[in-house]
Amino acid sequence: MRTAFYISDGTAITSEVFGHALLSLFPLEFNHDTIAFVETEQQALAAKDKINRAAKVTGEKPLVFHTFVNPKIREIIDSCDAIIYNFLEHFISPIEQELGVSAKPKAHRTHSIHENSYDNRIDAVNYSLANDDGSNITNYEQADLILVGVSRSGKTPTSLYLALQYGIKTANYPFIDEDMDALKIPDFLKPHKKKLFGLTIDAQRLMDIRDGRMANSKYSSARQCRMEIRAVENLYKKEKIPFINTTKLSVEEITAKILAQTGLQRYKY
Amino acid sequence: MRTAFYISDGTAITSEVFGHALLSLFPLEFNHDTIAFVETEQQALAAKDKINRAAKVTGEKPLVFHTFVNPKIREIIDSCDAIIYNFLEHFISPIEQELGVSAKPKAHRTHSIHENSYDNRIDAVNYSLANDDGSNITNYEQADLILVGVSRSGKTPTSLYLALQYGIKTANYPFIDEDMDALKIPDFLKPHKKKLFGLTIDAQRLMDIRDGRMANSKYSSARQCRMEIRAVENLYKKEKIPFINTTKLSVEEITAKILAQTGLQRYKY
Repeated sequence: MRTAFYISDGTAITSEVFGHALLSLFPLEFNHDTIAFVETEQQALAAKDKINRAAKVTGEKPLVFHTFVNPKIREIIDSCDAIIYNFLEHFISPIEQELGVSAKPKAHRTHSIHENSYDNRIDAVNYSLANDDGSNITNYEQADLILVGVSRSGKTPTSLYLALQYGIKTANYPFIDEDMDALKIPDFLKPHKKKLFGLTIDAQRLMDIRDGRMANSKYSSARQCRMEIRAVENLYKKEKIPFINTTKLSVEEITAKILAQTGLQRYKY
Repeated sequence: MRTAFYISDGTAITSEVFGHALLSLFPLEFNHDTIAFVETEQQALAAKDKINRAAKVTGEKPLVFHTFVNPKIREIIDSCDAIIYNFLEHFISPIEQELGVSAKPKAHRTHSIHENSYDNRIDAVNYSLANDDGSNITNYEQADLILVGVSRSGKTPTSLYLALQYGIKTANYPFIDEDMDALKIPDFLKPHKKKLFGLTIDAQRLMDIRDGRMANSKYSSARQCRMEIRAVENLYKKEKIPFINTTKLSVEEITAKILAQTGLQRYKY
């Protein structure tokens, strides 16, 4: 199997996203290897050794995705027995021309703490954790967003993703069995109705997820799952709470759809 | 201010990472706008309207970063009054040549649920939440990694990031004031010593963070912070627990360094 390397003087997240987006277009499997924090010529030479060894062992030239701007390190990586893809170089000069400004070839630290949004993200994680699953109903004033939905409809991972990636303080509140008979917005959420966003999910998928946690329980029964979902969807429609069905969506997709629908301001791009 | 648009038929995360990596090289400020889930020609035309409006309002051509592979949608986006950067097109044909395989121009869903690693990530988030901050000391058998460190040294955000992004089940355990007199690895962690990874932080930064939570307390005092840090660093060295100093690192950087040092297998690239 051919190896794909993702290399950078920082986290290599940009190289990973770039390489993965390209390779996902091809119906092939790859070995993946990330080499992060290649900051010196010595480290670049060690990376080169590793790449050249992969070329020898597999008999196929590795694909190397990188974002180096330091010319000496680039030269070392470019001299590997590999196919080199540097996505920055194709774009820097057209953007320079358009902007009329030169790029500053500093170390390429897109994912470092130096972005001024960083503390917002950590604060948002702390907020979201403290306000997960209805654990604190007195604190919604500070929320940017409050996710509601039945148990296991995706509220917690989505809340954490919104907080960690985008610095959005996201509380979440579960509607549980006891609420279902006459489901309504709880009094403590009413003042924050504009922050509510509903999640729903197909009954079969909900049953599968719940069955993995509590097999053969009322909680995971078809009847219970269907009843809960019907109740929350009716509530969302009656109260005009925006909502999405998470059944076929990743946490990234749920998040992107919520951002698009709410127009919420994010702290990081 | 010039506007940068990030557009895609999916989450637009790839376009955002791509555009942000490029724009971060320039000493300029931009307005950022993401248009996700542009899946139909009608939605592409709506995006075009938005882009052209930004061109008119700002008097400067917006920069548009996209990853469309659908030719009809590309044609619409390419016809905008904007500078268009499509990072896929430059790389697809060289990769096709190298691999001897044609790209499959399907909708570009890099961040969708269809990756088979998805359930691992959600399981890991649930595990990390249930095993945050020493809340469950009977469950370390399942951990891929156990972060240790003093309160507010970065354990929780790092655990959640490792879980959410990479599907790595990360527990974390805090060393607290009462432990410090004769700090050692607690008995329940000893069988899992190989999974331990230490975080440390500069005393001044720790004081600042703790002061934000509990001003003028023993907890946030210079003396206490210095003492705790000295104790945990001595423990790490004595017990040969690998560790890093998180003071100047983002959660992405801490994570990348942990992955590099431990060689942990991740479930997602």
